[in-house]
Amino acid sequence: MAGPSRPGLVHVREAAGRLQGRLHFTPVLTSAGLDRLAGRRLFFKCELFQKTGSFKIRGALNAIRSLVEDSKNTGGELPRAVVTHSSGNHGQALACAAQAEGIPAYIVVPWTAPDCKQAAIRAYGATLVPCEPSDKSRAETAARVVQETGGVMVHPNQEPAVIAGQGTIALEVLEQVPDVNAVVVPVGGGGMVAGIAVAIKALRPDVKVFAAEPRNADDCYQSKVKGELTPNPHPPDTIADAVKTSIGPNTWPIIRDLVDEVLTVSEEEIKQATRLVWERMKLLIEPTAGVGVAAVLSEQFRAVPRDVENVCVVLCGGNVDLSSLTWLTDLPGKVE
Amino acid sequence: MAGPSRPGLVHVREAAGRLQGRLHFTPVLTSAGLDRLAGRRLFFKCELFQKTGSFKIRGALNAIRSLVEDSKNTGGELPRAVVTHSSGNHGQALACAAQAEGIPAYIVVPWTAPDCKQAAIRAYGATLVPCEPSDKSRAETAARVVQETGGVMVHPNQEPAVIAGQGTIALEVLEQVPDVNAVVVPVGGGGMVAGIAVAIKALRPDVKVFAAEPRNADDCYQSKVKGELTPNPHPPDTIADAVKTSIGPNTWPIIRDLVDEVLTVSEEEIKQATRLVWERMKLLIEPTAGVGVAAVLSEQFRAVPRDVENVCVVLCGGNVDLSSLTWLTDLPGKVE
Repeated sequence: MAGPSRPGLVHVREAAGRLQGRLHFTPVLTSAGLDRLAGRRLFFKCELFQKTGSFKIRGALNAIRSLVEDSKNTGGELPRAVVTHSSGNHGQALACAAQAEGIPAYIVVPWTAPDCKQAAIRAYGATLVPCEPSDKSRAETAARVVQETGGVMVHPNQEPAVIAGQGTIALEVLEQVPDVNAVVVPVGGGGMVAGIAVAIKALRPDVKVFAAEPRNADDCYQSKVKGELTPNPHPPDTIADAVKTSIGPNTWPIIRDLVDEVLTVSEEEIKQATRLVWERMKLLIEPTAGVGVAAVLSEQFRAVPRDVENVCVVLCGGNVDLSSLTWLTDLPGKVE
Repeated sequence: MAGPSRPGLVHVREAAGRLQGRLHFTPVLTSAGLDRLAGRRLFFKCELFQKTGSFKIRGALNAIRSLVEDSKNTGGELPRAVVTHSSGNHGQALACAAQAEGIPAYIVVPWTAPDCKQAAIRAYGATLVPCEPSDKSRAETAARVVQETGGVMVHPNQEPAVIAGQGTIALEVLEQVPDVNAVVVPVGGGGMVAGIAVAIKALRPDVKVFAAEPRNADDCYQSKVKGELTPNPHPPDTIADAVKTSIGPNTWPIIRDLVDEVLTVSEEEIKQATRLVWERMKLLIEPTAGVGVAAVLSEQFRAVPRDVENVCVVLCGGNVDLSSLTWLTDLPGKVE
């Protein structure tokens, strides 16, 4: 897809217009128990309730609708196919959005992706193409499929229309929590945190934007420390399957310039936070959403100034493989 | 506690006034996927998000606040203690409500109740008294504790203040889903369905009230068929732990007169429906809430006239024992 490599507020607003009425306006929920644990007022943006079970449909639908509008405006034909690589949630989202427009979708998926996500991609009528669990294999396999199908690549997190689509979360959060002081956003490829940062810093520069990342996949943190894009050297090992990928050339400059801080959390913290949200809030978040919750409950977050009182955590998705919950049922003790 | 044995709309409205600002106004969520499966528009009243993780705090808090108001009005003392028996959720609720007023609480709990519910009762500072898993043992043990402590019995479902408190759910549903045609309510002791039926039939007699019950604990169904109160003959075996108890002398006349139909569902249907809500809606309901969902997805419900289009299912609670999920992870196949 063409377009500016760095989307701005105008693109986020255009995206909001395209998505209007097609997606859920997801609720913001609160929990007195979690507020006590964090020592702040927490607001949970429930993107796990979003269509396809994650926020990813925002970016995917904005990209697909942009393609459809372009073809109408130029009198051209619809794309012969759309292609992407995805750990699962963007794949589901693109498959769903493409199906709605009658465009064939090819989704390159690491064979390690959760079964439930692979099954959902197939259920939306897309063709699933397996690859190895590395950024290199994902990119190479997708490039091959683009060549073979003559389709259009819709990158899961570097595509500007995707970044702009994810930014619509921020417009809703500012409406739902007008006195918000900070947002906490899990980061994998960085599409969500970049889109949110673009909108937040344009509209409310006083609001902090925190990225939250598994310590085992801390490319965003390392990039900020070094001041240059530093991808994960190896395929990372983390329960947060949706953020194993690294930030890239389009999300890095936005993150460098607009994200205030990157918080990293351990695997144990991610699991405990995920279980805590299940137990206390009755929300079936996936572990990747637990990354943001773990960040606001972390020691590191206690150092954030006290005037950052109202903190919105984006619960990015709820696509959990219910047939393999041993990571949760085997977790020692109860979280109190 | 004293008071009329059959509460009316006025008592439900008084309860709503007492609870105002003390409890969550729980959201109503929808799911296009479940609508397709049911062939109707479904609205899910999310009492799993209610304080203490179930609707039970409504009745318990109404009862406790009524006791406090009575003691103020008469210049008398607060009760020395409150006592109840409970499969878990009412126990948590009464413990929570009593703690807020500084009243000691004694909760009689069948030793088979889920660990998470027993732990939560203790966490609210109440004294837990174990009993056998039968209506007889629950009643006898509670009577003994009342005698020993000089406390006031707050029956989990026959206490009129409890029934009136649960009825406040109906006032909210009528506000949130003005064009509702039916409500579906799981039934154990019948406090919730009785309270809801009292309010619904007074305000909107055109709205159907369905009770939903495990086939393995079908005392409500049998009572309606026979036209007389017919408790479960034996302690029932069902995954829906919160509705093992039978309806009683105060809920039966209301159910007899105001509940349109009792729908019964199998254990397999309850488990599949619960898993479906986890997978599709990302809501961590307990299996007892799955009873209502199973009912609207059942063959039996297809016979309900088509003009019953908008159906509200009360998701009554979310207190699931996360350390024992084998009933879910071992469930064959995926629900499609």
